[in-house]
Order: sequence, then C-alpha cells, then structure tokens
Amino acid sequence: MIRVLQMGLGPIGLATAARARRTSGLELAGVVDTDPRLVGKDLGELLGEPALGIDVAADVLGAIDATHPDLVLHATGSFLDEVAAQLYPILDRGLSIVSTCEELAYPFYRHPELARELDEAARKAGAVLLGSGVNPGFVMDKFAVTLMAACESVGAVRVERVVDAATRRGPFQRKIGAGLSREEFAEKNSDGRMGHIGLAESAHMLADAMGVSPERGMDRLLQPVFAEKRISTGEVEVSPGQVAGIHETVVIHADGTERVRMELDMFVGAPNPHDAVVVEGKPRLEVEIGSGVAGDEGTVAVVVSCAPLVQGLQPGLRTMLDVPLAPTTAPRRILRSSPAPS
Amino acid sequence: MIRVLQMGLGPIGLATAARARRTSGLELAGVVDTDPRLVGKDLGELLGEPALGIDVAADVLGAIDATHPDLVLHATGSFLDEVAAQLYPILDRGLSIVSTCEELAYPFYRHPELARELDEAARKAGAVLLGSGVNPGFVMDKFAVTLMAACESVGAVRVERVVDAATRRGPFQRKIGAGLSREEFAEKNSDGRMGHIGLAESAHMLADAMGVSPERGMDRLLQPVFAEKRISTGEVEVSPGQVAGIHETVVIHADGTERVRMELDMFVGAPNPHDAVVVEGKPRLEVEIGSGVAGDEGTVAVVVSCAPLVQGLQPGLRTMLDVPLAPTTAPRRILRSSPAPS
Repeated sequence: MIRVLQMGLGPIGLATAARARRTSGLELAGVVDTDPRLVGKDLGELLGEPALGIDVAADVLGAIDATHPDLVLHATGSFLDEVAAQLYPILDRGLSIVSTCEELAYPFYRHPELARELDEAARKAGAVLLGSGVNPGFVMDKFAVTLMAACESVGAVRVERVVDAATRRGPFQRKIGAGLSREEFAEKNSDGRMGHIGLAESAHMLADAMGVSPERGMDRLLQPVFAEKRISTGEVEVSPGQVAGIHETVVIHADGTERVRMELDMFVGAPNPHDAVVVEGKPRLEVEIGSGVAGDEGTVAVVVSCAPLVQGLQPGLRTMLDVPLAPTTAPRRILRSSPAPS
Repeated sequence: MIRVLQMGLGPIGLATAARARRTSGLELAGVVDTDPRLVGKDLGELLGEPALGIDVAADVLGAIDATHPDLVLHATGSFLDEVAAQLYPILDRGLSIVSTCEELAYPFYRHPELARELDEAARKAGAVLLGSGVNPGFVMDKFAVTLMAACESVGAVRVERVVDAATRRGPFQRKIGAGLSREEFAEKNSDGRMGHIGLAESAHMLADAMGVSPERGMDRLLQPVFAEKRISTGEVEVSPGQVAGIHETVVIHADGTERVRMELDMFVGAPNPHDAVVVEGKPRLEVEIGSGVAGDEGTVAVVVSCAPLVQGLQPGLRTMLDVPLAPTTAPRRILRSSPAPS
C-alpha cells in the first residue's frame, strides 16, 4: 500500500485525490492547499460527498509529519520557477514527488539550471522527482517515443492533437481566449504566455529521444482560431468572428530538415477531436487515437498510474521517458523484483 | 558503448546482428550459431556484404570469453522449454539476455516453474533476462498496456492484428499453412502447435496488467482462412479454396465477463493490414496503427531498442511491462542517473 499526499486542490488536484482514494494499492494520507477558503475543510465536502475525515492542511511539511506519506502528488502550478521552492523541502524529507507542473515534464531546455539543482537535491535525498500528466507527459511525447522503439530508424515525427475546448472546464475555455475579439486576444497574448504550456517540453523530449540537437532552437507559431458560427458552451458565448481558441505549432529542425512537428488545436467547437502520431521512420507508423485522450481525466489517470512506478526508478529528476507506463493494476510482483538471494 | 553478442543466426538473428552493427551506442562483439553450415563463416558473407572480420562461433561460452560482451541477444527458438538450457550458462556468467523466444515474453502461465528458476538464476547472477520482440512484446501487449495508463479504469481490452502474410518470408507463409488443403491443414494442426506462438503470452500480460485473474484459463480458437482467389506470393501458390493462413482468437474471462480479446489474422492476401487496440475504459480509447507494425523489422527494432534499456532494470526475469520503451537514440544522460553524491 502506497500512502500518497495530495498537494494542491485545484480541479486536477481534487480529481487526483478522489481517484487515489478509489485506487487499490494507493491510500490517500492527506490533502494540502494554502487557499484559506479550503484550509480546515473536509475533503468530502470539497468533492460533494459525505465527510471523509481528511481535512485540508495548509502546510505540506506539517502534513507530512502528521500523515507519513510515501509519496507526494503535486498539482499547484504550470511554471517550474514558480513551484520549485515547494519541491525542495519535500525532496529533502526523502519523499518522491509526481507533479503535474507542465514545465517539469522536460525542464532541461527552459530551466537547465533549475533542472540540475532539482536533480541534485533529489539524488542526495534518494528521492524521485517526476513531471507527469497527459499533455505533456503522455499523448504528444511518451506515446510517440514508445512507438519509435518499433522503428529501425526515425527521420521525423509529427504529432497532432485536436481538442474541442467546449468539452473542457470554463477556466480552460477562457484561458485559450474563447469569446475574445481579435484585439483582446492580441493584447492578452502580449506576454507570449497564452499557448499551451508544455508543448515545447514535449517537442524537446521527442527531439532528445531521436538523438536530435535542435540547430536553431525551435520555431513556434501561435494563432487564434475564429468561430464561424455562434457557439455557447454554457461557460462562454462565442459569436462568429470572435476567437474560439488557439492553433499552436512547434517545429524543431536539425541538419537542415524538419525533425519534430507538433500541431495543437484547442478551440470550442473543434471538429473531429483526436490524437495522431506519424513516425516517419523505417517502417513508417501512422497512429490515431479515435476521439483523443481527454485532458483532465487523462492527466489524473497518468499521474495516479505513475505513483507505484516511481518507486522503481533511480533517484533524481526523472522524466516520463524513464517510466515503464502501466496501469496501477499491473503486478508489482513482476515489475519489482525482490532482492537478489545472497 | 554496449557490446552485444548475437546468438542464433536465423533470419531474425541475422537481421538483429546487422542492425546492432549500424546502431550507435551498440557494438557487435560477435555472432554465434551451432549450424555447421554457418560456423566459421564471416558475418559479412552471410549478409551478402564484404567481410567484416566477425566469424560465426559455434560455442556461446567460448565466444563470451573471447569477445567480452555486455549483453547477449538471443534468437534461437520460440519454445521456452527448448531454449532454457541455453540461457542458464549465459546468466551464470552475469550477462543479461534479450531474447526473441516468444514464450519467454510472459512465461508465468505456460511455464511457471521454469520462470521461477530462470528468475532465480538471473537474480543470483545480477543479470536481467527479458523476452522481447514486436509480437509478443509490443504491438498486442506492451503498446496496449501503455495506453491503459491513460485510463482511470479499464473494463476490457480488445486487440486486433491483421498481417498480409504475402509480405512475410516464405517459411512464415508455409508455417501458417498457406497452400494446404483443408485436410492437410487439419493434419498439420493435430498437435495444436500451429497458431501464433506468443498470443497466449500477450493475453496473459494484458490480463495481469488489468489485475484480472482468468477464471477458467483462456479460450482459444484457431481456424484456417481459405483463399477466395488465386494468390502467388513468389514463395507459395494458393488456389481458391486452399488455405491462405490462419485466424486465431484468444479470450480471457473473469467475473463472468470477457476482459481480454485478441484477434489475429495472418494470411496471404489479407486486406487492410493493421493493428488496433480498443480499451473499454474510462475514457474509452480506440487506437489504430495504419498499416500495422511489420513483424520481422519490428522485432529487430524492439530487441535492439531494449539493449540499452535492460541495463537500467533490476536483475531477474523481467518482462516488457518493466521496460521504459524508447529508441536507442534516447538520452542515457537522462534515463540513467549518476550515483547519488555522498
């Protein structure tokens, strides 16, 4: 039984806590959030269920001392420089962390120095630090890398994800600009932070897996997608000509050719939502996941799946490349060998 | 640099040796086969290339002493009881093995006692023993298990593989009965060994990954597929009404419902070759690999991909469930952490 502590109770953290409770082999030791509106409340209340006897703690170290977890599931933010300070004290206690922080999924490019420091802290403490989730973490990177192993050689990879944002949460719809005018979108995107956090991380994970050294960084294009007809999602009203969401492209070149291409459509009313990977290799592999892997549900599932698996990884900053992905029902008796007989 | 010794120089072994030579990070230390027609010949001659200065050795232990490999790639047979005796002495030398032996991919059901003994021998020696390949090993098992990790829960899984046997080697076409009459097929199949070796192993890997205990073993159905029109593959002539190949189904039930279904079509002229996985889970995932993962090429690629990865696994009998699949170009600096600073 692995005792997990959930840190961060936004929509993903809350769903992860709920899922961990229902997952055999996992035990929810406690939940932590600094939001004063949540602290002290029973988790059951937050989930709209009867009381569970698990109160929201404000302080993660206090909660660790009180509940003795084996692992922390971390979901407090997307930007590594903003959450790194939360990670060190947990690692220092020797506790491994599975985090949904998108920039942690592959931090070697955007935050090489932080990555080095976090790796050192984790190794020193004998703990594992892993950035996980569905995107980044699975559908546009790990999944494609797994496929590549069936190719003798890989020249290029293209990954495409189309998400109908109308099926996602209201804050998500607003984050991608649904309902904005062209001018409002441009202004909101003036700091360049409007695209999908993690797309660059996925692209670099793919490039690394292919042995590609980007020769001029990466090319990135973020464009608004405009609605052609009126769409009402229940959260956002979008009129024809208004922004429905985004189309984002990230491309990595090496040796004068395109090696990695990521295409991400996220807008309300997007037709034919799906995930697709084309590995231009020997052989060529073309894979499509029918209606796509749902964002929030998928992230919760992948994070929870990783909980037992990190215990088999070598200490340090690890990535999804290191994880032999399997559901939590997979047999530990096979995955984890007992110590060699003496 | 990982020095590999190729044991077994049938079509797959020969292709694996050739691929290992061309793979950066791997070095082909030597090749071994007991066939007197091959012993002493230069590998280049067998590959139809200029001499390579690598002669076929007859004795694997002698070759190990002479060439000091880090790893043995093993491709001598499909049945574990027939090849197990070859594995012990290699493990005893502390050498890890990646084998294409189909029954080794998941030996816990058909050969539980052998699996236990091999696991013990490997752990004692600090070595890893892994059954690998594309089928079993990837397309009908590992690939589906990887997908399952993105589901909150999985009720059932269906895996379908359609192979146009006309694109495969002549011996493969004859193995599946292409060109036989109905009566000849029935007679050839009288020992029940005609189906695809490894399908049951894949099914049990899936069942285990789902936490399913088969309640009445598995149901297996093997049927000949008859040609509707004349097909000439260059190796085999098949007239209308003659056997074109096989259709094989393996099903595992638990709790009164079907949990795992494998459908395998392998016949000359099979239309629309492809691989497909349907995970009846939350969410439901439906994945198709366009024209399918080629059998021989895929096996070679997966085996070679596993060569660097086994070094990161815990000693013992491992399975593809344990392997964080990635191409050989994936960065070891990330995959394998340096020792913790003292």
